[in-house]
Parts: sequence; C-alpha cells; structure tokens
Amino acid sequence: MKRTDVKDIYQALDCYDGKQVYVCGWVKSVRTSKDFGFIDFSDGTFQKSAQIIFDAKLDNFVDVSKLNAGSTILCTGNVKLTPENKQPFEIVATNVEVFCATDNTYPLQKKQHSVEFLREIAYLRPRTNLFQAVFRIRSVAAMAIHLYFQQNGYVYVNTPLLTTADCEGSDQMFKVTTLDFNNLPKDKDGKVDMSQDLFGKLAYITGSGQLHGEAFALAFNKIYTFGPTFRTENSNTKTHANEFWMIEPEMAFCDLEELMDIEEEMLKFVVNFVLSSCPNELELLDKFVSKGLLEKLNNLVSSKFVRVDHAEVIKILKAADVKWEFEPEDGGDIAKEHEKYITEYFGGPVFVKNWPKDIKAFYMKLNPDNKTVAAVDLVVPLAGELMGGSQREENYDKIVGRCKEMGVDMEPIDWYLNLRKFGSCVHSGFGMGFERLVMYLTGIENIRDAIPFPRTPQNCNY
Amino acid sequence: MKRTDVKDIYQALDCYDGKQVYVCGWVKSVRTSKDFGFIDFSDGTFQKSAQIIFDAKLDNFVDVSKLNAGSTILCTGNVKLTPENKQPFEIVATNVEVFCATDNTYPLQKKQHSVEFLREIAYLRPRTNLFQAVFRIRSVAAMAIHLYFQQNGYVYVNTPLLTTADCEGSDQMFKVTTLDFNNLPKDKDGKVDMSQDLFGKLAYITGSGQLHGEAFALAFNKIYTFGPTFRTENSNTKTHANEFWMIEPEMAFCDLEELMDIEEEMLKFVVNFVLSSCPNELELLDKFVSKGLLEKLNNLVSSKFVRVDHAEVIKILKAADVKWEFEPEDGGDIAKEHEKYITEYFGGPVFVKNWPKDIKAFYMKLNPDNKTVAAVDLVVPLAGELMGGSQREENYDKIVGRCKEMGVDMEPIDWYLNLRKFGSCVHSGFGMGFERLVMYLTGIENIRDAIPFPRTPQNCNY
Repeated sequence: MKRTDVKDIYQALDCYDGKQVYVCGWVKSVRTSKDFGFIDFSDGTFQKSAQIIFDAKLDNFVDVSKLNAGSTILCTGNVKLTPENKQPFEIVATNVEVFCATDNTYPLQKKQHSVEFLREIAYLRPRTNLFQAVFRIRSVAAMAIHLYFQQNGYVYVNTPLLTTADCEGSDQMFKVTTLDFNNLPKDKDGKVDMSQDLFGKLAYITGSGQLHGEAFALAFNKIYTFGPTFRTENSNTKTHANEFWMIEPEMAFCDLEELMDIEEEMLKFVVNFVLSSCPNELELLDKFVSKGLLEKLNNLVSSKFVRVDHAEVIKILKAADVKWEFEPEDGGDIAKEHEKYITEYFGGPVFVKNWPKDIKAFYMKLNPDNKTVAAVDLVVPLAGELMGGSQREENYDKIVGRCKEMGVDMEPIDWYLNLRKFGSCVHSGFGMGFERLVMYLTGIENIRDAIPFPRTPQNCNY
Repeated sequence: MKRTDVKDIYQALDCYDGKQVYVCGWVKSVRTSKDFGFIDFSDGTFQKSAQIIFDAKLDNFVDVSKLNAGSTILCTGNVKLTPENKQPFEIVATNVEVFCATDNTYPLQKKQHSVEFLREIAYLRPRTNLFQAVFRIRSVAAMAIHLYFQQNGYVYVNTPLLTTADCEGSDQMFKVTTLDFNNLPKDKDGKVDMSQDLFGKLAYITGSGQLHGEAFALAFNKIYTFGPTFRTENSNTKTHANEFWMIEPEMAFCDLEELMDIEEEMLKFVVNFVLSSCPNELELLDKFVSKGLLEKLNNLVSSKFVRVDHAEVIKILKAADVKWEFEPEDGGDIAKEHEKYITEYFGGPVFVKNWPKDIKAFYMKLNPDNKTVAAVDLVVPLAGELMGGSQREENYDKIVGRCKEMGVDMEPIDWYLNLRKFGSCVHSGFGMGFERLVMYLTGIENIRDAIPFPRTPQNCNY
C-alpha cells in the first residue's frame, strides 16, 4: 500500500475522512489503558503530530504499549475526523508494525530538553518540535529568497569558495591545503613551499562572493549568490559562527536609493512568504520561544523603513538621555545598544546610510563630501543589523586610490579593478547573513540553534 | 526615467510598440554609415541582443560611432517593432550617453574567441553569447531543483562544509587551518599540535553532505542538500574539478525502486523546466555547441528509463562484438566506453543497479545475496553517469560489520552509526553533481566551462 504523509492528511482532512492510510514514522510517546492506547506520532512531514489509536485486539498490543520515544513504526489504519478534539483527526490502527524499537538509552525523552543539551546531540535535535519549526522555516525562507530573485530576473551565481583573492582580508580566512602538516616541503629560504600545493600557491576558503558577484552583475545585470561563507574569528558569542550562509545580490545600474528599495522589498517578500507558509511553526515559536514574534513579523511587512544618514543617527544618539556603554562619536561605529535605541526611536526598521569612509571597505563609493561612502546598514527591531550594502566605487582611479590609502594588495584583485575600465557602471550590492535572517524569523537567540550543525571555536563535531 | 530591461521588451513586444524607453547596458558592436548607425546592444537581461539605431543628428554621433565593444551606454529612445527583420524590434535613439568607453585593450572583440582563451578571462567571459546561455541555464536549473524538492515536501538542509567526519575518506579532502604554516605548534613528540587550531583538532572541507543529510531525513522524512563540495584529486580531465556543487536528497521509508522513481521524476522535471524557460539559450547551444541537444533533451523527457542489474550489464558487454579498452569483468567497474555502449544498446537512460559490494561504499545496503549492494547509477546518453545513489544499510550490526571489513574509522561517525539504533528505517538517497547536470543540459564538454570560476590543479585564479 502506498505511504501517506501526515502533512497530506492535515491539508485535506475531508478527503481523508474514513479512508484507509498507511503511515510510517516515529513514536513521540505512548499512553495506554487496559483496552486501548494512543500513540503521539510524527513522520517528520508536518509540524503537528498525529494521534494513532490502537486497541487490545492487536496481536502485538503489549509490545506497542511499551514503545519508547523515537521508535519506528509502520501503521495501517483508518482516518477518523475528530472536530471536537484538540487534534482534528485520529488514525484508528488496524496494524502496527514495529520496525525499530529504541531503548532507554535514546537521548530524547518526552520531557522538555534545554537547547544547550540539544546542541550536544545535534544529529537528533531536528526531531524535536522546536527544531522541526526552526529548520522548516529555514528551508522555506531559502526557497523564498530564490523565488524573489528569480522572479525578478536575477541570475543565481555560484561564486567560488576556494580563492586566492578575497574582499574580507586574508587574516580572517581559513587556509586550505593538501600538504602533510608533519612533512611540509620547504623552499631554499626554509619557508614552506606553497608552490608544491595543489593550486601551486596558498589558497583560502572565502569570506565573501562579492568580488566575483560584481563581475557577473556587469554581465547579467542582476545576480545573487547564496552559499556558505567562513570566518576564522575566535569569538564565542551568540551571533558568531565560523561557518554560515550568505546571500549577496549585486545589481548593475543601481544606486544607493534603489539598493534600499530592493532590500526592503526582498525582506518583506521573504517575511510574507514565511508567514503564509509556516503558520504552525510560527505559532509554536511565538508561544514558547519569542512572545510577540508574529506581531513583530506582521509589523515589519506593513511598515515603511526609515532612511537616515549615519551623521544624523549620531546626533540622535548624542541627544538621547541614555547612559551608554560605548559613547556615540562623530565618524564612529554604531554599537548594538545604539542599534536598539535607534529602532525604538523610529519605531521600526531603519536604513543607516552614508557612513564615515574610514570605518568602511575600500570598494565602497566615495561620496562628493570626500568623507563618507555610499554604504547602508539595515537595522531591525530586536535583531540589529540584518543587511549591509553599498554602492560600489565604479571609477578606476578612485578605487585604486582607496586601495593605496588603505594598503589593499591590488595584485590578486587586478581583474576586479579592471571591471572599472571594461564597461564600468554605477552598481550596488548587499550581503545578508542567512542565519541572522533565520534568527529574526524564528526568534531564536543563539546562532548555534539557527544552523543544522554549528561550527564555532573548539566545536566542529558531527 | 525608470530603466527598462531588454527582457521586458522582448516578452511584451506589443505593449512597448511606440513607447519611450530608457535602457542601460553594453555595446557589443557598432556599424555606421554617413547618416546613421546601429548598435548591437545587450543589458545582460536576455539572451538575444537589441538593436539601437541612432542618427547623425545626435550631438555625440561621432563619439558613439567610434564606440568599442564593451562600452557602457545609457540610451533613451522609442521602440519600433520591425516584424520584417531578423530582430523583432529596434530602439530609435533620441539620446545616447556614453558612461564608460573601452579602448582596444578590451579583451573581448567581435570575433569568435576560443573557450580556452575565454577561460583565461573568467571574469569577462559571462558577457559572451555562449556563457550568457550556459550560466543562465545553470541558474534556471538550480531553481528547477529547488522547486521540484520544495513542491514535493522536501526540507532543504545546509549540511556543514567544515567537518571532522566524512563519507568520502579524508585522503580526498582539503585540510583547513588557521595556524601559520611557517610557525606550526608542535606537541611533545614533535608532531604538529592540531589541538591549538581553532577547532582544537584537524578539520577538513567536506566531500559530501550525505551523512548529515541522513540524520535530517530521519527527522524530516524527505530532505535535500544543494551546496559546494570539494575533492583534492590531482587530475586534469574534462570532467574533474576540485570544487563543484552537489545535490544530495535523502528519503526515509524509501527503498531502491522508489529511489529510482524519484531520480527519474526529478530529472524529467528539471529538463522540462529548462526546455520551457530557456528556448533561446538552448537554440544557440544546439546550433553552435552541441548539434542535436534539443532532440536529446526532448527524448529524455518522453523516455522510460531502463532498470537493469549490474551483473546483466556485464553479460551484455561481454557478449558485445566490441574491442574494449577495458575488458568488462564480473564484479568489476563499468568504464566510460561501457556506459556509452549500454545507453546505445537500450536507446536511452539506464539505471544500473545492485552493484558488487567490493567496489562500493560501506553505508550501502547489503543485498540478501551477500555479494551485491542496493546501489544504483543513472547513466545517460552522451554524458555517462549523472547520479549515484543507494539504499542505506539501516541495520546497526550489519553497518558496523561493513565498517570493520573495510577498515572505516568508526569513532568520528559514531553518531551516524547510532542513527541505526535510534529510530532506524529503510532509507535511500542519491547524489548528483550539478556541473555534470549543467554539462548535460548545455552540451558543454568541459567542466571548466560549466562553473563560473573553475578550480582545478594549479588553477585557483580570480
């Protein structure tokens, strides 16, 4: 008999009323009386579980009654709608085959486990209600991102991860090698001879696909990347991971204002898509993880994002009657506490634009004031910075000047600089950390819980 | 004035007839007479270029006339439908602003360039007709893959790239480090002390997400991965790259026969999607790169894939009146020449199933004959092996037995083996190299031309 997904029953209750089904999945819990029992059952296809009712007439009633959480069963039965109950239907079992019975060494028991404990069993935690919700939303959000960009004519580009040129600076990148650490070849000066490595030189795994993305934007007009990214930061915070996913769109003939239009439109599209696709997941998270989550997301969709200059933000912060940990300064960066204040001040998402050039990257478009660059960060309530972007410097002499000023090694990126000679144009792009978005969408506070198998300092297990 | 994409004009010709438009993009070539000139123009949004006609009344007629390929222009003009011409419309320019004029150092001239030359300018080649077609099809195919799996209830999982456990064997993996090669810390035995590295131990970048994917399949039922993958192979062939993208779906409660059903359905969906989304791209490739491409793709969609045992394939090969380079052997592998013969023999795609266990991986399901495993390769005409998959060994004792037989280090994958104790079930999955698919869809013969910035031995430029 063909297998039925629990999801299909939930989504077409009336069609399944009275129908025989064959479901395969896992026991969450069993409770029994003398004559019958209930299995709280999940097959992983739907956020809500199904209830299987089985009675003492089953040959294996005793075995089934004793099943532990996590056991695998294959069950044939009839769907019975139960509109009067909490669960809209139950499956009245005619046969329950036990495929794999767990014993009490199974780490997930019926009780509530802490997220810290669950991180220690990262390969089992996706079976919990919490991580079913988080990782299904993650998947749906990824789809929303692809849909937004493809429907709007963007070309998806897989920029390389192995690289010898990177815009984030090589001190933040992992080195990659095929050489034997205990038997490294040396050159005549006694230095390690990287020319004997697979690529004939030292290679890294990248911290950004932006430079390569720009090359493709100047060919396809609008492109986006969506892939993993790496940083070597040795920092153990709630928001840092050494491996994470990034979305980096890049648009030709697009200035800073248009860039903000696109960022706002995309974010609203993704939030709307998740709101309509994942009601059960969001309900659970709103209830148990982040009270007010649904309200926050609904507010975002209907709000108009404020656009304000960095200098203006500093003025507002200075005028605020707040005892800051980091005192706001003209030309200075904006700390977490400032981001929080500014979103509350404006009552919603805020684009902070035109940043001091000295604290931003070499490739950002120098404004006519010669002091600021056409960069923009999107700051959102409760999550802080969600996207960072800029108009790119499209003038060859100016970008070369900035490289020299900032000591950027131009040799490995000569091709990138050449884009300013060969059909240059006004262009802009931004980066969005995907885990940051997932945290925003789910209310999850630790990046370790927003990615399937987190990699952080001293932690590369599984 | 708001910018119009060339794509929008092509897709709604009647709506644009007589309309004023503002287009921004790049000159492909200019030809002029005394009184007027034609610009072959692309803005990167559409495979076909647009024709801009400009006349001597323009202030900058002489400058525009002299524009070189690759120059950037911003043009205002009126759309005029020209159904009698090869191109269905032209833009009659009222203003042409030259934003960036290239000189004769611009590497892409009007003539046909070899793919070998274009690989040397990987950052400019997406501007050519050939690579516009290849990389747009790549993007559309990626979207088709996401659509297929999401519409069928699969959860997209981002498995980690940094790993200390991998199913492909660590000798094929890149090592990753934050340590200084010229100043490596040593332990008391004089060996490099990897405990001082960021993760406290030696880490790799992965060759597969399968093991992690299985953990998620046993929670979400149906999952897929789609991300970059790495191999250190020092081989310079048309089909090997050190960095490539893979799709790895994994399904709970799915046996070998169902696996083949899914592979066949997915491939047909993707081919159909590309056929309907990229007619201009495929037409160009059919004409200039791979004659018969469209016929091949159309045939695939309507064919029924044959399913045949490995042992049967060997019999057919042995009976063939062919002088083989590699003599087919019972229990032996199937070479490229054999794949070619077998697809011709059956006149279409062939699933070769139930392979000798000795030439396959430890995690594949042992068949009752104790000699073969429930593995399957999909072999397609002209491209050879496109997917490789298997039912997974779900029995704890059997998979541990296979690990011991094959000398697999079980310590780093104890969690993976535990999946056979904690709610084990019949499950299957496959892997598809995305570049292999792109080559199949485009007729491109070298993997270096199917990926934006290829990484191969001695080649990690850009």
